[in-house]
Amino acid sequence: MPDPTESVSFSIRHRDPASLARSGDLTTAHGIVQTPAFVGVATRATVKAIEPQGLADHGLQILIANTYHLHLRPGEETVAALGGLHGFSGWTGPTMTDSGGFQVFSLGAGKEHGVGKVASIFPGKDAPPTSKRRAEGGRSLVRLTELGADFRSIVDGSLRTFTPESVIAIERKLGADIILPLDECTSPLHDYAYTKRAMERTHRWARRGLAAFRLLEGDPSFPNPHQALFGIVQGGAYRDLREESARVIGGMGFDGFAVGGSLGRSKDEMLRVLDWTVPLLPEDRARHLLGIGEIEDLFAAVRRGLDTFDCAAPTRLARNGSVFLKGAPRHRINLRNARFARDEQPIDPMCDCFTCTHHSRAYLRHLCRAGEVSFYRLATLHNLRFLVRLMEGIRASIRAGSFDALSADWAATARPTETGEP
Amino acid sequence: MPDPTESVSFSIRHRDPASLARSGDLTTAHGIVQTPAFVGVATRATVKAIEPQGLADHGLQILIANTYHLHLRPGEETVAALGGLHGFSGWTGPTMTDSGGFQVFSLGAGKEHGVGKVASIFPGKDAPPTSKRRAEGGRSLVRLTELGADFRSIVDGSLRTFTPESVIAIERKLGADIILPLDECTSPLHDYAYTKRAMERTHRWARRGLAAFRLLEGDPSFPNPHQALFGIVQGGAYRDLREESARVIGGMGFDGFAVGGSLGRSKDEMLRVLDWTVPLLPEDRARHLLGIGEIEDLFAAVRRGLDTFDCAAPTRLARNGSVFLKGAPRHRINLRNARFARDEQPIDPMCDCFTCTHHSRAYLRHLCRAGEVSFYRLATLHNLRFLVRLMEGIRASIRAGSFDALSADWAATARPTETGEP
Repeated sequence: MPDPTESVSFSIRHRDPASLARSGDLTTAHGIVQTPAFVGVATRATVKAIEPQGLADHGLQILIANTYHLHLRPGEETVAALGGLHGFSGWTGPTMTDSGGFQVFSLGAGKEHGVGKVASIFPGKDAPPTSKRRAEGGRSLVRLTELGADFRSIVDGSLRTFTPESVIAIERKLGADIILPLDECTSPLHDYAYTKRAMERTHRWARRGLAAFRLLEGDPSFPNPHQALFGIVQGGAYRDLREESARVIGGMGFDGFAVGGSLGRSKDEMLRVLDWTVPLLPEDRARHLLGIGEIEDLFAAVRRGLDTFDCAAPTRLARNGSVFLKGAPRHRINLRNARFARDEQPIDPMCDCFTCTHHSRAYLRHLCRAGEVSFYRLATLHNLRFLVRLMEGIRASIRAGSFDALSADWAATARPTETGEP
Repeated sequence: MPDPTESVSFSIRHRDPASLARSGDLTTAHGIVQTPAFVGVATRATVKAIEPQGLADHGLQILIANTYHLHLRPGEETVAALGGLHGFSGWTGPTMTDSGGFQVFSLGAGKEHGVGKVASIFPGKDAPPTSKRRAEGGRSLVRLTELGADFRSIVDGSLRTFTPESVIAIERKLGADIILPLDECTSPLHDYAYTKRAMERTHRWARRGLAAFRLLEGDPSFPNPHQALFGIVQGGAYRDLREESARVIGGMGFDGFAVGGSLGRSKDEMLRVLDWTVPLLPEDRARHLLGIGEIEDLFAAVRRGLDTFDCAAPTRLARNGSVFLKGAPRHRINLRNARFARDEQPIDPMCDCFTCTHHSRAYLRHLCRAGEVSFYRLATLHNLRFLVRLMEGIRASIRAGSFDALSADWAATARPTETGEP
């Protein structure tokens, strides 16, 4: 067991000879994460529909919670009083907290532009971003200044401010093993000039966050000396900005790195962003990719040297009836489909998750169509276990020098989308 | 293990010397139910928010599913094709199906009168019941005739008909161990004349249901020879009607009995209904009370000679944050209460359920207030385990001759309701 007073360390054990893919151990005070690894999204200190023990039973190694959501409810002081994220939730393994920068973005430009990390819907014109962003109903939800971000609580409407310093203090109280500094996310619809200004602000905020983190290291009123701070690279889908951000953030002395913000307007752009960014980051530190988790993306990102990945899509898809099955179109089937009405097979005959060892597609389809809450947990357990086993397979292939063959196998078996799928 | 081709039998093992309470074994093809027992409500072949294995792990003995809901979705043919309720859901223990009579009532007079089993809200006048009942929007949802009940599907709006015969055929296909015949439920707001007519129809339907059940017993196209048919006593809150119904239904040769329909306008009326009814039912058969499950009601009904009880309230309360704790007002606390914000205790320090052995009130309160789906399962597991242990205690007290003392202890520790409770 790792030393609970030690910060995070990362050791690369194996490298793929044909790509940047690597496999290693990310050691934290709460256990070792074998990488590449999928990080479960526990926004409000729970993965949606699953209690922590169910996640541990299914081999999930690490969770990421959200600073913005936990600050608003129940508040970091409450979480701290109950022993931090670990004591509070009962999850005993490694944890991360995202900084809330993306949530602030979602309330502002993300809402205005109607986009997430990768824009797939293009409005008629790129509306010039305003500094005072307005969402539905004309009510200002976010105001960004050099100091930080002012926003209204989605819980009670109260005015709140995040600064690079306050976010670090909140995350120190939440107590995750790996924490991230406040950043300014941009939309794929922001222009070069705006994206550049936001990146430069993200760099200034990163410096302030790092300074605050070091200041609090010696402060006995802040527990959790085991924490590590990872820097976030921004720069949108612009090559020179991504390269600049990787060099600047990479040179600040962070314990590891995350690639954040807009990853472009298409999958190709996303991969180019990774191609530009990753080789400029310090080789010996862990690299996290924020908010990406489709199966083909996981292979592509591992190939480009990313180590960990979080994404809400696999759990959200599950709740909608879309569950992973290797070889199906996009490696998933939708249990709502009529052809499963009397299908006695498990979702995936090769899967060892609770759901596949206990229930048929027919029963799951019934629960899904009836809107039964029990469905959400069963479907989510399968999708997470599927990703856990996928990442195990990826790690084994890197060790064995067969990552390329594994990638090719998965790409070849994902048949084109049929009507009615996913 | 009981013989899977044998029907249900009931053996009384212990009797309380001071009341009609008794403890026994209700033997089914899928296991023995030790009585008195709480029956988990699995309307659509799942207890809301809990997979069958979780129920078994928490000691639940028997589930009741609903003929009306399963007929509409996924349909009895589908359930039968997948091995009946047991094969379909993966629940291997004893099961019951309610007939759908109460659901038909809920769409008709129950909706019109705005009441359930016990009326607690009295409209200005008792509107005379109409034969063609109209619900919101003026759309007729149910029409009762001597043949049966015509109603519109809540799933797709299609017209359906239940007859006493068709309901038995549906239940034979669903395959529960104990099935109930179609009955006509009445509201506490129905007058004597209406209630008497409905009771008489229920008796005629009971005879038809029993005849259909016997007819199908020799038919090889209907599997599940292990099934038993329980008769339902009606008669509202009128003494002579309840007594007549108990004698008539009690004399028809059913394998056991259920007390159904309106149990009056108050708890006192409900208890009088049981006082009138139960002593007239055959002593050697099991007696089920439909839809009652508050703790004080369980004690009162056991005292009056009831053996099994189903009720959706404990699971519904759980989903709303209201969880059982002996000694609290009405033996429950509401986790939404601010006083639990930093409470590190489990819901019930004496409880051995998954929730109490893994999570604090503070974390559960957070999940509840955040609307997290994971909360529903955790809270429901506790409430069901609490009832399982309560019934274990009741059985032990009947064996030991201390049922009266146990009742008195629970009544004494339920403190009067404080502000803000439950």
